[in-house]
Amino acid sequence: MSSLRTVTLGLAGFGTVGGGLVQLLQENRKELEARSGCSFVLKTVVVRDPSRARSVQLPPQTRLTTSLSEITDDPEIDIAIELMGGIEPARSFIQSALEHGKHVVTANKALLAEAGRGLFALAGRSGLRLLYEASVAGGIPVIQVLKDSLAGNAIHSIEGILNGTSNFILSEMSSKGADFSTALGEAQEKGYAEADPTLDIDGFDTAHKLVLLIRLAFGVEYPFARMPIQGIRGLDSMDIEYAREFGYRVKLLGQARMTEQGLEAGVYPVLVRHTYLLARVGGAYNAVRIEGNAVGSLFLHGLGAGALPTASAVLGDIVAAARGTTPFNSGFIEQVLPEANILPEDMPVSPYYVRFMVKDQPGVLHILTGVLASHGISIAQAFQRGARTSGVPLVLMLHEGRVSDVQAALKEISTMDFLCAPIVAYRVLD
Amino acid sequence: MSSLRTVTLGLAGFGTVGGGLVQLLQENRKELEARSGCSFVLKTVVVRDPSRARSVQLPPQTRLTTSLSEITDDPEIDIAIELMGGIEPARSFIQSALEHGKHVVTANKALLAEAGRGLFALAGRSGLRLLYEASVAGGIPVIQVLKDSLAGNAIHSIEGILNGTSNFILSEMSSKGADFSTALGEAQEKGYAEADPTLDIDGFDTAHKLVLLIRLAFGVEYPFARMPIQGIRGLDSMDIEYAREFGYRVKLLGQARMTEQGLEAGVYPVLVRHTYLLARVGGAYNAVRIEGNAVGSLFLHGLGAGALPTASAVLGDIVAAARGTTPFNSGFIEQVLPEANILPEDMPVSPYYVRFMVKDQPGVLHILTGVLASHGISIAQAFQRGARTSGVPLVLMLHEGRVSDVQAALKEISTMDFLCAPIVAYRVLD
Repeated sequence: MSSLRTVTLGLAGFGTVGGGLVQLLQENRKELEARSGCSFVLKTVVVRDPSRARSVQLPPQTRLTTSLSEITDDPEIDIAIELMGGIEPARSFIQSALEHGKHVVTANKALLAEAGRGLFALAGRSGLRLLYEASVAGGIPVIQVLKDSLAGNAIHSIEGILNGTSNFILSEMSSKGADFSTALGEAQEKGYAEADPTLDIDGFDTAHKLVLLIRLAFGVEYPFARMPIQGIRGLDSMDIEYAREFGYRVKLLGQARMTEQGLEAGVYPVLVRHTYLLARVGGAYNAVRIEGNAVGSLFLHGLGAGALPTASAVLGDIVAAARGTTPFNSGFIEQVLPEANILPEDMPVSPYYVRFMVKDQPGVLHILTGVLASHGISIAQAFQRGARTSGVPLVLMLHEGRVSDVQAALKEISTMDFLCAPIVAYRVLD
Repeated sequence: MSSLRTVTLGLAGFGTVGGGLVQLLQENRKELEARSGCSFVLKTVVVRDPSRARSVQLPPQTRLTTSLSEITDDPEIDIAIELMGGIEPARSFIQSALEHGKHVVTANKALLAEAGRGLFALAGRSGLRLLYEASVAGGIPVIQVLKDSLAGNAIHSIEGILNGTSNFILSEMSSKGADFSTALGEAQEKGYAEADPTLDIDGFDTAHKLVLLIRLAFGVEYPFARMPIQGIRGLDSMDIEYAREFGYRVKLLGQARMTEQGLEAGVYPVLVRHTYLLARVGGAYNAVRIEGNAVGSLFLHGLGAGALPTASAVLGDIVAAARGTTPFNSGFIEQVLPEANILPEDMPVSPYYVRFMVKDQPGVLHILTGVLASHGISIAQAFQRGARTSGVPLVLMLHEGRVSDVQAALKEISTMDFLCAPIVAYRVLD
């Protein structure tokens, strides 16, 4: 393997996402090195209270401090990571890091939505990366998709379920008939909702994220203060029930749509037709639907919050900043990849669907089940239907077992004279 | 706006996708320039038969020729685009373009799966980009997501519906009870399936794409010859029906899963539990589900084929190759974006769900509908339920109308004395 370049990181904020990042930098070290050609060293972590107990252990070489300038003013640090949240001191920290020539990775949607303009201008003038994949929809890479993959599109519209807390509450109300305050209480118990849930349930968090997506999709600044915002506070479960009768699910959507007369954007609870993929987004998941004049309709779905999914987005940005100008065509530093270590043929396991077309004679099922049992295969469900011209269909759903055992059993059965047609067998994704 | 840099393109292959690309280079010129800082000039197009009529007009400055060396040997051309398909002469063309120092963009999954290794090595040694987003799942940016966004993950598994023809056939069989050959005939009539559908329905196309995804997800070469492949040819509609009785849909999946003992991969028709998003992928759509140890489960869904969606992916790659080292943090060359031209408040339109809690007295519905009609709002559906303590719920689904008209009408109604509670009104996504 080529020799690794050391990239030094400084992290401001060591809460849920910061902890996930520290964990992944250690757990996925091998993958990160192979994909970036870099060895990442976390030199400095800045927290408000260094005495607080943390669930994630810092590496021995990492310094814990309370002073942000130990990151911004340290010439060894290449990338500054801002996971504090809020407007200040996050803004000053990012500005100072850029002024000191560091790339910046942040998850701060409120800051970028309300005060992003100056920071982007500063980063652009300095030729530095200011990356923020983690700021919208957690692990869903919607920022990069809009910025890079869809660069050849005129974007028509975006619709997103961008707040997991609200979606969890609406899903609970919908599936269990719970009322709003019960569902909110449950979200708080499970750690999905803050003690003060205002940002989430009143739609501000969704609106912040929407401002960022509008920037990427349409190349314009949408003033946060002018965004129409309606949250889900106090939404009546009666309306969820009535919506369902009409064939709809109620979702908190951030929507933006380019019209000939201008850009229409807003955050509202919306009745979404139940056949749409957006209507199927349950629990704390997020999803975004993008319509472009080339790509048509693109739908992305994944975990919108949580330590590891959000840290996954932070790490993707760190790798992007670290890779620099080398093309990573195959995604790894090795230009000639090693051959796969393929799982031996006798090891794959799967549940199975199997159909036999058999003669209508006694004892057939007994013989079949006997052969299967002798190969250690157990049956989950079975049915037999009325005779067709090609025989009597006998259908089995098999529990997960070795593929090679299933194949051996079916091979043994395939020569038996009660069969009227070749055996049909498919794997099951369960 | 900053001055534009000219990037010169050479295109080999002017079929469906090539035509889409030529169309988008013209239609989306403004977006492309704003997002890349480049003016793209299509200098040369190579075709087998220059006399053939084309549905898309070439720009006046573009030269139509039959000689591939007019691209590879032209020092003015920066990016060579390969949309011919097949192994030769595509391989020699790409090799020669790289040897001449050009970035290459291709949609050729068969070539990259069966003979990609040498081309990636050559591109890597030369510091050039060999980009291939269009080779898997059309407009879905799964290549970039795996290569960049998920770079911080150890990938556990990938499952993809990667062949639109097969998925269309299975969808037709499932929704209309059609048999295989009827559904195949319909796919051919609609232009989804080739006259010789072998690559599609026998699973080879899915397998080619899976080899590319395995490379990106796991950093290894999976020899195409060793891939277990089972297509959908001759699949019996009876099995689709029985699968449905058990709660499953039949899909042609490419699957890869990393186990402790090795990599398990293959292409098979699989019964997919109906509650999974993968089971909901209909018609010619494609979808990919990726499981990583950080991101959790990520699901991408979009158009897997067709001129414009595939050309969207080609264009994303062209922009990536053209952008070079400048950071495009906000996705556009302008570091300070202009303010949004926001749609005037009286212009948005939407269908609406409205609930009134009213006193149980005669004439209420008559008054309500009168006010709505006077604002030009028409009613799609209505129902009234039994009285609750807070009044009688009267629910209306309104046809699409101006939001400002709906608001004016509801404001007028809100002061009427038959109302027992505030009016509830939500937008509808239909």
